Amino acid sequence: MKDNVRISNAVIRRLPRYRRILEELAGKGIERISSKELSNLTGYTASQIRQDFNNFGGFGQQGYGYNVQSLFTQIGLILGLDREYCMVIIGCGNLGQAIANYATYYKRGFKIVAMFDVNPKLIGIRINDIEVQDYELLEKYLKENEVDIGIICTTKSSAQDVADKLAEGKVKGIWNFAPADIEVDDSVVLENVHLSDSLNALAYYISHRDQP
Amino acid sequence: MKDNVRISNAVIRRLPRYRRILEELAGKGIERISSKELSNLTGYTASQIRQDFNNFGGFGQQGYGYNVQSLFTQIGLILGLDREYCMVIIGCGNLGQAIANYATYYKRGFKIVAMFDVNPKLIGIRINDIEVQDYELLEKYLKENEVDIGIICTTKSSAQDVADKLAEGKVKGIWNFAPADIEVDDSVVLENVHLSDSLNALAYYISHRDQP
Repeated sequence: MKDNVRISNAVIRRLPRYRRILEELAGKGIERISSKELSNLTGYTASQIRQDFNNFGGFGQQGYGYNVQSLFTQIGLILGLDREYCMVIIGCGNLGQAIANYATYYKRGFKIVAMFDVNPKLIGIRINDIEVQDYELLEKYLKENEVDIGIICTTKSSAQDVADKLAEGKVKGIWNFAPADIEVDDSVVLENVHLSDSLNALAYYISHRDQP
Repeated sequence: MKDNVRISNAVIRRLPRYRRILEELAGKGIERISSKELSNLTGYTASQIRQDFNNFGGFGQQGYGYNVQSLFTQIGLILGLDREYCMVIIGCGNLGQAIANYATYYKRGFKIVAMFDVNPKLIGIRINDIEVQDYELLEKYLKENEVDIGIICTTKSSAQDVADKLAEGKVKGIWNFAPADIEVDDSVVLENVHLSDSLNALAYYISHRDQP
């Protein structure tokens, strides 16, 4: 990978999709693939795909295409998936529990190390062998343990407070599922998941398909 | 809105974000906003924003900016949010329950009308006043009721079967949370939510920030 190359956010956003598709192909025993075939699978144009991969020095060979396994590995390295990320979940209702199960299911280097909630009914229960702790203990936990990612699964009204506490506790990134536009300073990477955006886009495509 | 104008997917994807931010502004009593201020709030460039809004005939006025309430309403109309969407959830584990709560919380025209699962422990329980039904009854339900959106919250291995059943039952769109690239024919709009893509992007930004 070329160092000092600033890769655009748009490219970064496409990489996980490429990687997912390459993994499926590898799972089917497919060894190489052309940009045209990748275009059919991803919905991006072949020219876009070649351009994206050129950002990293290009892995393809004229007339051969791309080696599936090597491209999969390379993209994983670029995405920083060659290491483990320790994560805590704040908010252990249905969403927090779903995310815990999801992350465990995926494994790939993302590890839930602790879970916190304010609800006495949830404190003490075990989710995938992790005991839900009192949210009051988060500050202490972050002082004593290095945590990479804090996952916010609280209500909208609590989200900013939780984000502040995570930032003070020096997490490197926040994965926010609360339907709130929280703010953190530049030392923390913030990734918001706005499920409503996805649902609204779906509504657009449905309602415009309905038109004669 | 100009008819017969083909709006690019990239623009459609930005609209829900604009709308969310405009709603927050309206909630704070802000009546008008410039493309430059919207740029600060969205992260898109002012020129990009003006270009996006020009797609719909442009709602701004030189020297005044955009009327927050009117722009909010217009974008809602474009997205098809002026009507109600009836939705069913398949898979009522933590994720399905979280989505049910989320959708109910949001209200905005998206209504859960039925929920289905194969698990006898879940069949019969009530989630926000909706009783979870046996998945065997989905086919019959879709014959007797018009459903706009089917939400798949099952495991990866069941997702394609559920999608096929939803498509046979003439749903208009599928909102898929299962970590599987399901296929449906062109009569159904498919919106995949790949949480791992978002997590992988977060990993990228964290690992590249760590570099000296």
